[in-house]
Amino acid sequence: MRFGLFGGASRPAGHTGDSQSYGKFIDYVVEAEQLGFESVFLVEHHFTGSGQVSASLSLLAYLAGRTRTMRLGTAVTVMPWHHPLLLAEQAATVDLVSNGRLDFGVGRGYRANEFHGFAIDPAEAQARYEEALALVLKSWSSTERFSHDGRFWRFRDVVVEPRPVQSPPPVWVAAGSEGSVRQAALSGQRLLLDQFGSAEVTGRRVRWYREAQAEAGAQSLPGQIALTRGLMLVDHPAKVDDEIRRRHAAIAHLSATAQIPGRPAPAAPTGPFAVDTSDEATRAATIVGTPEDCIASLKRLEAAGVDYVLLNDPWGGIERLRFFAREVMPAFRREPVTV
Amino acid sequence: MRFGLFGGASRPAGHTGDSQSYGKFIDYVVEAEQLGFESVFLVEHHFTGSGQVSASLSLLAYLAGRTRTMRLGTAVTVMPWHHPLLLAEQAATVDLVSNGRLDFGVGRGYRANEFHGFAIDPAEAQARYEEALALVLKSWSSTERFSHDGRFWRFRDVVVEPRPVQSPPPVWVAAGSEGSVRQAALSGQRLLLDQFGSAEVTGRRVRWYREAQAEAGAQSLPGQIALTRGLMLVDHPAKVDDEIRRRHAAIAHLSATAQIPGRPAPAAPTGPFAVDTSDEATRAATIVGTPEDCIASLKRLEAAGVDYVLLNDPWGGIERLRFFAREVMPAFRREPVTV
Repeated sequence: MRFGLFGGASRPAGHTGDSQSYGKFIDYVVEAEQLGFESVFLVEHHFTGSGQVSASLSLLAYLAGRTRTMRLGTAVTVMPWHHPLLLAEQAATVDLVSNGRLDFGVGRGYRANEFHGFAIDPAEAQARYEEALALVLKSWSSTERFSHDGRFWRFRDVVVEPRPVQSPPPVWVAAGSEGSVRQAALSGQRLLLDQFGSAEVTGRRVRWYREAQAEAGAQSLPGQIALTRGLMLVDHPAKVDDEIRRRHAAIAHLSATAQIPGRPAPAAPTGPFAVDTSDEATRAATIVGTPEDCIASLKRLEAAGVDYVLLNDPWGGIERLRFFAREVMPAFRREPVTV
Repeated sequence: MRFGLFGGASRPAGHTGDSQSYGKFIDYVVEAEQLGFESVFLVEHHFTGSGQVSASLSLLAYLAGRTRTMRLGTAVTVMPWHHPLLLAEQAATVDLVSNGRLDFGVGRGYRANEFHGFAIDPAEAQARYEEALALVLKSWSSTERFSHDGRFWRFRDVVVEPRPVQSPPPVWVAAGSEGSVRQAALSGQRLLLDQFGSAEVTGRRVRWYREAQAEAGAQSLPGQIALTRGLMLVDHPAKVDDEIRRRHAAIAHLSATAQIPGRPAPAAPTGPFAVDTSDEATRAATIVGTPEDCIASLKRLEAAGVDYVLLNDPWGGIERLRFFAREVMPAFRREPVTV
């Protein structure tokens, strides 16, 4: 079992200026490396008004200079927003300055307010994603100049530099349905699993991925599937209810943030936030409770085939991460890192 | 007099892979800070095939994590290539993680092969530059959500995050003609002066800028005008001729790189490279010769009103920078940094 971080800086409501939250997050990541966390996967969001990380690759480039071994991931870079060649250059630069530590997570986007803000039709998301991702991969691999005349982009006689150190950096995709999980495995992509599926649901997804790999004759290695989990480790069981309330409020806030400004929010969270927020479902899909409870949850995931967990903890701070490293991590053997 | 660096990594001809040149450049910059250099201004170029820095802001983000006091500049970010809001986010992130050390140099682009590669009509460069720069500045300052329906870009109800630490980061422009130099001063922009004008030409430009500032009632401070100079400091006068030959070859190479691939190169360098490359002109516009010669050149510039010189030295390496710091810098008093 290996552990990483999932998330990014964000500004507490009412806080002005972004330096404090970024500075705090940076310290958190730098210390996490010392504590044995093997990666950080940053979200990318725009126009939220609550200071979520927008220029994720820029922040990863900075973190490349502040860390030594940690893998530096995006979860995810939203392809439809980006100019594919500039993106290829930026991501390759992160890989280069980090000496091959980039994990390149990619997605189509899902937030209504971002499509609205960028004035991009959500109906185009899939096609933009495919064209942009293909261009990034070609930019990283082509040894000849190439031209491109696509639906969204046109280029002539380009050679894209720098080259990444990894050839190429691993591409991670978020998937959950059987078809998309199998497709990821068949495409040689790594798999990001969400923070809402139970151990049982997660176990099925892991099996689909591993089966598809086996069918394709692809090498099955540890660390190819990363599961995100909310971390609500506490020192006393009486604190759990308050943690769960806080998590539900955070999810509702993120869901509201994803709406188009000025339009009435839907009665219930939508999109990826349209999840079962009963206490039972939340307990089944988070790392919650005392160290013993958390170890038991993680052991269930391990039994379901999970070997890589990304912890998402927007409010526990470095103290909780230290507590986790001290009381929970030692119960798990660290597999060697696969890159 | 203060000193900074101008340039970036590039791959020597025939070299494969970009890590070595980036790694060497990074070490160079990190040591330069220790030697007393106050800034690094990175170029931005695309599709050169010779490994020039493309994702300049990503490399600056990394350098923010490796340096402590140095100012981190672009010279220049080419506005027509960039999505203005993503650019505002990336530049603000550099400013944030560096605690307010970004110097934001901006330009319209001039290389034929870049307009060709991006499939952007050079006739649109000025309009794209103006629209994009206005959007970046608005993104950094607007406290309200805004929409934009421009010639090249459209956005709806956006608030751009993070905010930069500086409000705003200084904007630097390259200018040389009287009108454009005066306009920069009147717009409150800092001035980047080129590496080809003699001390006399440079002195006139400095005067235009200072006069325009005075007319506008703007505060005239040290460090608002940065002059780039090729550095060819040598330990023996007999080595100067070889340095000058090498500089001419480098300029011819850059000029060729800027041409559209596959088209015949012009007989003589064009664009900003269409300069007088007689030995006499080169000596008049570079810091060349023994330490005594270099001190004399810099004193002439100082007498012409120059208080900030960016050194460009693609091949001398850290050894030459150390030599400069030891033998030349002590002849100049350092003014306090203005940010």
